[in-house]
Amino acid sequence: MSLKASVFIAVSLDGFIARKGGELDWLDAANAGVSAGEDCGYKVFFESVDVLIMGRKSYEKILSFNNWPYGKKPVIVLSSKSIIIPQHLLKTVSYSSESPTELWKRLAHEGAKRLYIDGGITIQRFITEGLINDFTITVIPVIIGSGIPLFGYLKNDVPLKHLETKSYDFGFVQSSYEVLKQT
Amino acid sequence: MSLKASVFIAVSLDGFIARKGGELDWLDAANAGVSAGEDCGYKVFFESVDVLIMGRKSYEKILSFNNWPYGKKPVIVLSSKSIIIPQHLLKTVSYSSESPTELWKRLAHEGAKRLYIDGGITIQRFITEGLINDFTITVIPVIIGSGIPLFGYLKNDVPLKHLETKSYDFGFVQSSYEVLKQT
Repeated sequence: MSLKASVFIAVSLDGFIARKGGELDWLDAANAGVSAGEDCGYKVFFESVDVLIMGRKSYEKILSFNNWPYGKKPVIVLSSKSIIIPQHLLKTVSYSSESPTELWKRLAHEGAKRLYIDGGITIQRFITEGLINDFTITVIPVIIGSGIPLFGYLKNDVPLKHLETKSYDFGFVQSSYEVLKQT
Repeated sequence: MSLKASVFIAVSLDGFIARKGGELDWLDAANAGVSAGEDCGYKVFFESVDVLIMGRKSYEKILSFNNWPYGKKPVIVLSSKSIIIPQHLLKTVSYSSESPTELWKRLAHEGAKRLYIDGGITIQRFITEGLINDFTITVIPVIIGSGIPLFGYLKNDVPLKHLETKSYDFGFVQSSYEVLKQT
């Protein structure tokens, strides 16, 4: 099957995607210095994915902003319990208690081509199950000292192929990697 | 005073400088793919520093290789207890139980211009005391899942200025950052 799963995320130089409570103030502060109209490839990436998969915590955080940023893109929230989905999102948001592998298989069967995997725990679960094909990581020029790490414990090394690195005037450095087949 | 302290180090994509026991097999494996004669700027950096400061663990590890790589460069090992210094290194290696700030002040007074700070705990101690001026970090294309992290817990954010990023054919990505004055 040709389904791919991708991570596209910003991290502090010390590898955190958010502070402990999910706060992104450090990222918002950095984004204030970004050139107008520059999205570091996000729109192109977002348009390339069929489905966005995230955890319950990310979902609730984004919902709290009162400005759903994902338009009509199907979003699947991984959660062992049912979640609250507001009326206006019922057409695009669903939840699943499947494991990453079960979900991946179902979506592959349904014809999906590329998944966007987001949120700390969810990304780590997909990595652990060997399901991530590529990473695009944008390093923000700040060390925040603690928070929610992008990567977690792994039994085995994950070898990567570096694809491309771009650095931006405003100090962000974006690298993309393809996951090599583990031997 | 114009003394600067610098970090020049390789990390896995998940931010480790070594496995838990100090093993560098993943780095050695990656180095096997490096173009002949390419040192990713290490020699130029090394020649720019007056003194290398490392912790006892790094010192003992390097000593175990039986091939001291630092020539006549003065090396100070941070250790609360005395360390064993082989005869042939007595002219260049010494140890100190000073705090990073005390050591920094003494070396500044002695006229040092640039310190090379190495080893996980030692780097973290210098960061915590606000003594690092610049980082050159070479990201190796592998996720190792656990190990000795480059960065540790910090009370306050450390804002950085991105200076330069180079990517190499063999997949290493080297970024340098200057530490901005904390406000």
